[in-house]
Amino acid sequence: MSAKVGVVFGSETDIPVMRQVAETLDSMGVEYEANIISAHRSPALAIEYARTAQDRGIEVIIAGAGLAAHLPGTMAAWTTVPVIGIPVKAGALSGLDALLSIAQMPPGVPVATVGIDGAKNAALLACEILALKYPEIASRLAEMRRTQAEKIGARRGIDLLKEK
Amino acid sequence: MSAKVGVVFGSETDIPVMRQVAETLDSMGVEYEANIISAHRSPALAIEYARTAQDRGIEVIIAGAGLAAHLPGTMAAWTTVPVIGIPVKAGALSGLDALLSIAQMPPGVPVATVGIDGAKNAALLACEILALKYPEIASRLAEMRRTQAEKIGARRGIDLLKEK
Amino acid sequence: MSAKVGVVFGSETDIPVMRQVAETLDSMGVEYEANIISAHRSPALAIEYARTAQDRGIEVIIAGAGLAAHLPGTMAAWTTVPVIGIPVKAGALSGLDALLSIAQMPPGVPVATVGIDGAKNAALLACEILALKYPEIASRLAEMRRTQAEKIGARRGIDLLKEK
Amino acid sequence: MSAKVGVVFGSETDIPVMRQVAETLDSMGVEYEANIISAHRSPALAIEYARTAQDRGIEVIIAGAGLAAHLPGTMAAWTTVPVIGIPVKAGALSGLDALLSIAQMPPGVPVATVGIDGAKNAALLACEILALKYPEIASRLAEMRRTQAEKIGARRGIDLLKEK
Amino acid sequence: MSAKVGVVFGSETDIPVMRQVAETLDSMGVEYEANIISAHRSPALAIEYARTAQDRGIEVIIAGAGLAAHLPGTMAAWTTVPVIGIPVKAGALSGLDALLSIAQMPPGVPVATVGIDGAKNAALLACEILALKYPEIASRLAEMRRTQAEKIGARRGIDLLKEK
Amino acid sequence: MSAKVGVVFGSETDIPVMRQVAETLDSMGVEYEANIISAHRSPALAIEYARTAQDRGIEVIIAGAGLAAHLPGTMAAWTTVPVIGIPVKAGALSGLDALLSIAQMPPGVPVATVGIDGAKNAALLACEILALKYPEIASRLAEMRRTQAEKIGARRGIDLLKEK
Amino acid sequence: MSAKVGVVFGSETDIPVMRQVAETLDSMGVEYEANIISAHRSPALAIEYARTAQDRGIEVIIAGAGLAAHLPGTMAAWTTVPVIGIPVKAGALSGLDALLSIAQMPPGVPVATVGIDGAKNAALLACEILALKYPEIASRLAEMRRTQAEKIGARRGIDLLKEK
Amino acid sequence: MSAKVGVVFGSETDIPVMRQVAETLDSMGVEYEANIISAHRSPALAIEYARTAQDRGIEVIIAGAGLAAHLPGTMAAWTTVPVIGIPVKAGALSGLDALLSIAQMPPGVPVATVGIDGAKNAALLACEILALKYPEIASRLAEMRRTQAEKIGARRGIDLLKEK
Repeated sequence: MSAKVGVVFGSETDIPVMRQVAETLDSMGVEYEANIISAHRSPALAIEYARTAQDRGIEVIIAGAGLAAHLPGTMAAWTTVPVIGIPVKAGALSGLDALLSIAQMPPGVPVATVGIDGAKNAALLACEILALKYPEIASRLAEMRRTQAEKIGARRGIDLLKEK
Repeated sequence: MSAKVGVVFGSETDIPVMRQVAETLDSMGVEYEANIISAHRSPALAIEYARTAQDRGIEVIIAGAGLAAHLPGTMAAWTTVPVIGIPVKAGALSGLDALLSIAQMPPGVPVATVGIDGAKNAALLACEILALKYPEIASRLAEMRRTQAEKIGARRGIDLLKEK
Repeated sequence: MSAKVGVVFGSETDIPVMRQVAETLDSMGVEYEANIISAHRSPALAIEYARTAQDRGIEVIIAGAGLAAHLPGTMAAWTTVPVIGIPVKAGALSGLDALLSIAQMPPGVPVATVGIDGAKNAALLACEILALKYPEIASRLAEMRRTQAEKIGARRGIDLLKEK
Repeated sequence: MSAKVGVVFGSETDIPVMRQVAETLDSMGVEYEANIISAHRSPALAIEYARTAQDRGIEVIIAGAGLAAHLPGTMAAWTTVPVIGIPVKAGALSGLDALLSIAQMPPGVPVATVGIDGAKNAALLACEILALKYPEIASRLAEMRRTQAEKIGARRGIDLLKEK
Repeated sequence: MSAKVGVVFGSETDIPVMRQVAETLDSMGVEYEANIISAHRSPALAIEYARTAQDRGIEVIIAGAGLAAHLPGTMAAWTTVPVIGIPVKAGALSGLDALLSIAQMPPGVPVATVGIDGAKNAALLACEILALKYPEIASRLAEMRRTQAEKIGARRGIDLLKEK
Repeated sequence: MSAKVGVVFGSETDIPVMRQVAETLDSMGVEYEANIISAHRSPALAIEYARTAQDRGIEVIIAGAGLAAHLPGTMAAWTTVPVIGIPVKAGALSGLDALLSIAQMPPGVPVATVGIDGAKNAALLACEILALKYPEIASRLAEMRRTQAEKIGARRGIDLLKEK
Repeated sequence: MSAKVGVVFGSETDIPVMRQVAETLDSMGVEYEANIISAHRSPALAIEYARTAQDRGIEVIIAGAGLAAHLPGTMAAWTTVPVIGIPVKAGALSGLDALLSIAQMPPGVPVATVGIDGAKNAALLACEILALKYPEIASRLAEMRRTQAEKIGARRGIDLLKEK
Repeated sequence: MSAKVGVVFGSETDIPVMRQVAETLDSMGVEYEANIISAHRSPALAIEYARTAQDRGIEVIIAGAGLAAHLPGTMAAWTTVPVIGIPVKAGALSGLDALLSIAQMPPGVPVATVGIDGAKNAALLACEILALKYPEIASRLAEMRRTQAEKIGARRGIDLLKEK
C-alpha cells in the first residue's frame, strides 16, 4: 500500500520530535513517507514535493519546522491537500516564533496548526482526517480514545502524591 | 443534502468573525449548521453536540472561541471528527490567550488551529479535509486557488504606491 | 473525617508540583482526596467528578494542569464548588499558556487562579476558604502566618551577603 | 445585614470595571461595601482595611487594580480572609502586567486571581466561597447556572451567521 | 535608467506603509519597481520574481508582509540579492508575529529585518547597500543625515513642553 | 536659579507624555531645561549634552524615548549624573520594546527606569534624588504624599459603584 | 560611619544576585546594611523598615524581589527616600513578571527599576545618587568608568574569534 | 587585502556566537577585522570606530549585542555604511530584549537585523551586500546555495525517523 501521509521537516535537529509522528502513525497502521526538505535551503525540492503530492497519492501532509518555520505554509501554497504544521521548539524563543509563523497564515491558504512539539497530535489529526474516507482508521481512533481514557481512569488515590 | 460541517461558537460577540466561515462555505457549496454553544456556560449542550456529531453526519467541526477558549478542545475530547479551532480576538490580550488555549492541547486529543480570527482559513481547511472524500469540493478548491493567484497577479506597477 | 478538598490533575508529570498541595494541606490538618483526571483524555471522568463533588462532601476543588490546561475550567463548568486552578509549568512556554488558559475564563464561570506552579498557595487559599466555616482552620492559618513572619524576621545583617 | 464582601480598588478609573462586581453581587443578594484604596498612595488605609476586615465581618475581599497592581497582594499580606484579585486593563500593556503582578504571588500568601477585567467572575467566585457557609447563596448560584445555560441553549441555526 | 530596487508586498492593505518606501527612494533619487506578490496566494509569481531579479538588474529587494509574513524569506530562498524584510503591523498581534517570522530565518538564508512598519528605514538601508557601488547615493545619504541632525538640533527650550 | 534637571526626548511626538514631567517639576518648584535630542538622528548633540551636563549644573537627567529607545542609555554612557529613563508608548508594540531597551542595560552603566509613559513618576524620582541635597524638596515631597493619601481617603462608599 | 544604603530582599534564594550589590558597594567604599524582608510574609517589618529608613540615615534603598515582586513598591509607598528595584529572575517567567511588577508603578509613587538581575547597576545607580551629596563618591564613579572603558579598549583583533 | 567587514561586539561572552561570523566569512574568502567595543562602557571607542569605518575601507559592519543591545544602533548613528545587527541570546529574556532593541530603530537610521544568535546569516548578508560590487563573492554565494540545497536533498526516507 502506498503512503497516505507525507511527513516533511526542515532539519536533522527536528528528528527527535518528528519521530513521534512516525510512532503514532505506525501504531494506527497508516502508511507514510518521510523527507528532510527546507523551505529556504532547498526551496525547489519543497515546491516539487507539494505540487506532486496529490498525484503521488499523498492525502495529508505533516510539516514540522522551527524558528521562522515557513515550511508548512510553503507546502500549503502549492497544494490543496490538507497541511498540518508542527511548530518545533528550537532556538532562543522556544517555539513561540514557529507557532506564530505557522498559525498566522493569511486568508486563502490554511495550515492546521498543532501545539509546539505537538508531533503526536499532528499524527492523530492526520488519522482523524483520513478516517473520513477510511472506516478502519475511524475504528482504530475510537479504540485509541477508549484505551487512553481507561489508562488514566486507573490511577487514583492520595498515594499518588505521597509516593517518592 | 444534510450538513457536513458543524459550526459552533461560544458567544454572540463572535458572530462578525464566524460569519466569514459561513460565507466561505457558501461560496464552496458546502452544507453546514451553526449553533451558539459554550464549553463553560452550556457544557451539557457542548458534550451532547460533540458526541452525536458523527452520527448526525457532521464530518468536520469548526469551533470559534475567545479568551480561555476551551470550546474546540472540549469538542475534540468527545469526538474523533476533526475539530478546527478559531481563536477569536477578544478581551485585553487580543486573542493571544485564545491562540495558546486552542493550540497547546495535550498529546492524545488534537485540534487543528488556525490564526487569530482566521475564520476564512478554517472554512477552507474544512473544505480541504472534505475534498478527500468529495471530488467536487477538490475541484472547487483548485479553481479558487487559481482565481486567487490571478487576482493578485493583475496588480503591478509603481502607481500602486503613488495613488491616493 | 471525609475529604473536604478534591485535588485533581491531568498527568503523572504534574506530581512533583501537586505534592506541595498535599504537604500543605497535611500541615494544616485538612482532609483531601487526589485523582489523576484529564479534561481531554478522560472527559467523562472529569465531568462525573465535578458533578458529584458537592454531594460527596467536597467543599473546594484544586485542579492543576499544564499546556492548554482546561481541567480547572471544565471542573468549574460542572459545579459551583469553588475551583482553584494551578497552572503547571510544562512544555515550551513554561506555563504562560496554562496561566492564560486558566485565568482568562469567560464571564459566568469563575476559576480562582494562583501563580505558575503555585501549589502551596492553592492549598493555603483552599484553607482560607474553608476557614469561613471551620474556625480551627482559621486559627491554624493565623498561626502559620505568624511563624512565617518570625522566620523571616530572624535573618538580618550584612553577613547574609558575604557568606559563601 | 452587614457587608460580607469588601470591594476595594485603586483608582476612579477602575470604576467601569468594578461596577460589574456590584451588579453581580446585587443580583445574588450579597451585601458588600466599596472603597477606593491605593496600595501605594494610601498604604496606611490599605493595611488598616485588611487588618480589620475579619473583625468587621468581611468574609471575602475583592480587590481590583491595574499596572503594577499590588493592592490584592497587600490586602492578602495583612489578612487570612480570602482575597480575590482582578487585574484591570490599564496602560500600555493592557492588563498583562496586572495579571502577572496579581497571580505570581510568592509561596505563603495566596491571591485568587481572575481574568483581566474579570469583575463578574470575581463576584461569582466570592459567592461560591460564601455558599460554603450560606446555603441560600448556593441555591442562587445553582439557579444562575441553569438560567445561563438555558439562555445559550435557545440560540441555534444558520440564521445566526446570516443576520446583519 | 532601470530599477535598482524591487519593492514587493503581499496585499493592498500594506500600501499605506509601503508608500513610505517609495517616498524615501524618490527623495534619494533611486529607481525602483513595485508589485503586489503573495508568497502564499501567488507563489509561482513570487518565485519567478526572485529568480529573475538579478538578471533584470534588481540589486536590492524590499519585501513587506504582515501576519505569518513569509514573503521576504521566500524571496531570499530564491536569490542571493540582498532582501530587506518589513514586518507590517496587521491583525491581532500588531506585527509581532511578522517581526518574528521575518527575523528568525534559519541559518543559510538571511533576511535583513527592519522594525515593524519600518518602511522608511528599509528604503534607507537599501540606499546604504547601493551606496557601496554608487558614490552619488553615498553623498545623498551623508547629506540626508546632516539635514536630519540639523532639523532636530533646532528645537530646544522649555517652551517645547509648555506650548499647547 | 539654574536648571537642576535636564529633560530630553527624541521626538516631538513624545511631547504629550513629557509635558507631565514639566508639570510635576513645576509643582515641586524644581528648575529644569528641556531639549529634543535623538540618540540616533542627532548623536553628536546627545553626547555633547551628556558630557557637559554635570559642569552646567545638571544634577539629574530625565530621558524619554520610544521604540528602540537608546537615548537614556546613550546619556548614561557619557555621564555619571543619574539618568532616569521613560519608555514612551509608541509604535506597534506599545512601549514594551522601549521598556526592555531602557531597563535591560548591561552591567556598568545604570539607567533608572520608570513605567511606560511614567513621566510623572520620573519627575518625582528626580525630586527624591535631589531631596538628598536640598531639604526643601524633601519637605515638598512629604507634603505631596500626605495630600495624595488624603485625596484617596476621602472617596468611600457603595455609591462609587452605583453612580453613572 | 553609618549605613547610607539599605539593601533588602525577599528570600534567601535572592542572595546570589544580591551579593553583587554588596560587592559593588564595597568596591565604591559605600556603607550599607542588608536585611531579608518580605512584602507579603513579613509586611509589618517591611513597613517599619521603610518608615524609619530616613531617620536612621538611609539615603537610598535597594530592594530585590522575584515573581510578583511587590517589595520595592511597598518600600516606596512608605518613604520618599529613593527606592531602586531589582527584578530577580525566579520562577517560570524568568523575571519578566518581576520587571513589570516593579516598573509599572502607578503615578505618585516612583521606583527606579534596573534590569532583571541588574544588581551591579542597582549599586552603581545608588552611588550616582549619593554622588550628588558626597563628592568623593563622584570621583570614584568617574574613575570606575575610566577603568571600565580601558579594560574593553585593550581587547582587539581577529584572534578573539579564533581562539578556543 | 584590507578588511571589508568590521565585526564588533560588546562582551567576551558574545564570542561563541560571533565566532560563527568569522567562520562564515572565512569560508567565503571575505576579509574582516574584529573588536570588542561596548556602546555603553567604551562609548568613545564605539563612535570613533563607526566614524572612521568608511575611510578605513570597511564596507559593512556586523555588530552583535545582548540585553539592551544598543551597539548596532550606535554604530548606525555614526556612519552610513550598512550595519547588520545580531541580537545575542543573553540574560533572563533569552535575546527577545536584544531583538527588539536592535530591530525597532526610529525612522532615519536603519539597522539590518538578523535572528537571535543569527551570526551565520549576518555574515552571509554581509556577503550578499558585498556581492553587489565584488562579482567573485556573488559566485561563491551562488555556489554555497547549491551545495546547501544538495546536502539537504540527499537525506530522504522513513529510516530518518526510525534510526536511533
